[in-house]
Amino acid sequence: MIDLYPTRGGDEPRFIDRQDPVVYGTAEDGPIDAGTLAGFDRDGFLTIERLIEPEEVERYRAEMRRLGRDMRGDERVVTEKGSDEVRSIFEVHRVSEVFAELVRDPRVAGRARQILGSEVYVHQSRVNYKPGFRGRDFYWHSDFETWHAEDGMPRMRAVSISIALTENHATNGGLMIMPGSHRTFVSCPGETPPDHYKHSLKDQEIGVPDEDSLTALAGKHGIELFTGPAGSATMFDCNCMHGSNGNITPFPRSNVFIVFNSVENACAEPFAAPSRRPEFIASRDFTPVL
Amino acid sequence: MIDLYPTRGGDEPRFIDRQDPVVYGTAEDGPIDAGTLAGFDRDGFLTIERLIEPEEVERYRAEMRRLGRDMRGDERVVTEKGSDEVRSIFEVHRVSEVFAELVRDPRVAGRARQILGSEVYVHQSRVNYKPGFRGRDFYWHSDFETWHAEDGMPRMRAVSISIALTENHATNGGLMIMPGSHRTFVSCPGETPPDHYKHSLKDQEIGVPDEDSLTALAGKHGIELFTGPAGSATMFDCNCMHGSNGNITPFPRSNVFIVFNSVENACAEPFAAPSRRPEFIASRDFTPVL
Repeated sequence: MIDLYPTRGGDEPRFIDRQDPVVYGTAEDGPIDAGTLAGFDRDGFLTIERLIEPEEVERYRAEMRRLGRDMRGDERVVTEKGSDEVRSIFEVHRVSEVFAELVRDPRVAGRARQILGSEVYVHQSRVNYKPGFRGRDFYWHSDFETWHAEDGMPRMRAVSISIALTENHATNGGLMIMPGSHRTFVSCPGETPPDHYKHSLKDQEIGVPDEDSLTALAGKHGIELFTGPAGSATMFDCNCMHGSNGNITPFPRSNVFIVFNSVENACAEPFAAPSRRPEFIASRDFTPVL
Repeated sequence: MIDLYPTRGGDEPRFIDRQDPVVYGTAEDGPIDAGTLAGFDRDGFLTIERLIEPEEVERYRAEMRRLGRDMRGDERVVTEKGSDEVRSIFEVHRVSEVFAELVRDPRVAGRARQILGSEVYVHQSRVNYKPGFRGRDFYWHSDFETWHAEDGMPRMRAVSISIALTENHATNGGLMIMPGSHRTFVSCPGETPPDHYKHSLKDQEIGVPDEDSLTALAGKHGIELFTGPAGSATMFDCNCMHGSNGNITPFPRSNVFIVFNSVENACAEPFAAPSRRPEFIASRDFTPVL
């Protein structure tokens, strides 16, 4: 398979122009209107002010708390570096019928199908707790860089949705995206060490863009910070340059995060890693969400 | 001397009502108008959109860079935890005629005299570099708690001014204050270890409010994040609960920070520490700024 997006091979970072479309469907295919779809194409993201209702938020928050209690010790639970506070729980659409339902919801999967122009499957799902007081940052990265290098995702045809379960204030470490950065692939220096994911889920160091590339991208595109009430959502392209600051406020920033990949873009062997990551991080079940 | 604000004595945090005025002067005394002064009294802070002009900003930035180069190795230079990147340089009004002039400027010292209703002296001055990419957070604290405990500042009659030398975006770890928190003194548990300042300037652990107190204060007062161009400024009362998140953006957040204390409130012996902090952190020269 031709590698359109080589990364982690050399010493020097470089920019590679995106070789793939951003939006594969049309306004006729689903709930997203033409203007919003055009915005997604241009910026690499869209926001939904009220994707789910307050009572649904309550239900998912309760389920999130339940999982945090019941799954202690499970390998799918990632704790914060330097503490045993839960940072993320993976594969929630398999361990929880409540979250499985959310994934199938036409408001969610319908939008993903529309953007990707095909049936979709879940590449990854998780809840992020981002606790107050000591929530650590997620440094800048393109998800696609990792999914391509470590999971063998061939092309840019995946989309993420982050659904807020707590209010995103300007102060509690919300998602930041560089609008328009999805059109540039930043090839990262360095080689992927074995079992890299065990470390990278807490604090990524390989597959991280260099500072000069980030300065150039931020200078060109600026940085957008997402705020909004619980129940709002952000969908963003797999190659958006994004990250989030830490959170010293008492307000946690919890969300459900689901990655949809096109069934026509199913993962193959890693392009730049010694072995596949575990299935709870990068699913090999390409069954369409129905 | 009676200790109106006991702290670091016991095991339990507690709230003590402020025993001192917030504003000591009147609108007739200086450049701050009556409405702004009333806002300061209520919220504990005020902002100035354009305190200094763009060409002055350039001059101070150049001086800041010069100090960063020339003062390497000086005890007044504090580096970031885990790197040798400069975090702060103290006592800049003594090492630099350029910053000394800024301190004396009627736009700066005049406002401090007005709020404090007396002549003022400089308790502390510094420049904070807060570099991009790896700028670390400043956890929540009341400055007065430290100045009282470790520097022997008797009463709440001091005011800080933070002058932005780079733009404060919503994303690069700007100052956060809980408006109205200046009316409550949070007595902190724990005892001050010897030479505490050597550690606390990088990452404070003693004199830090507990999470329950912070949750209560943030729930009552909310959190305000300050944004604004280079040249803008924030003045805030010595007992405001404040902090700032880390900064992973490429945009540094540099500022000059000056603490004015009333000459009628000169520091005595520490109220809760084994010895005084060095003079470059807590001046014992009570000569009024003229």
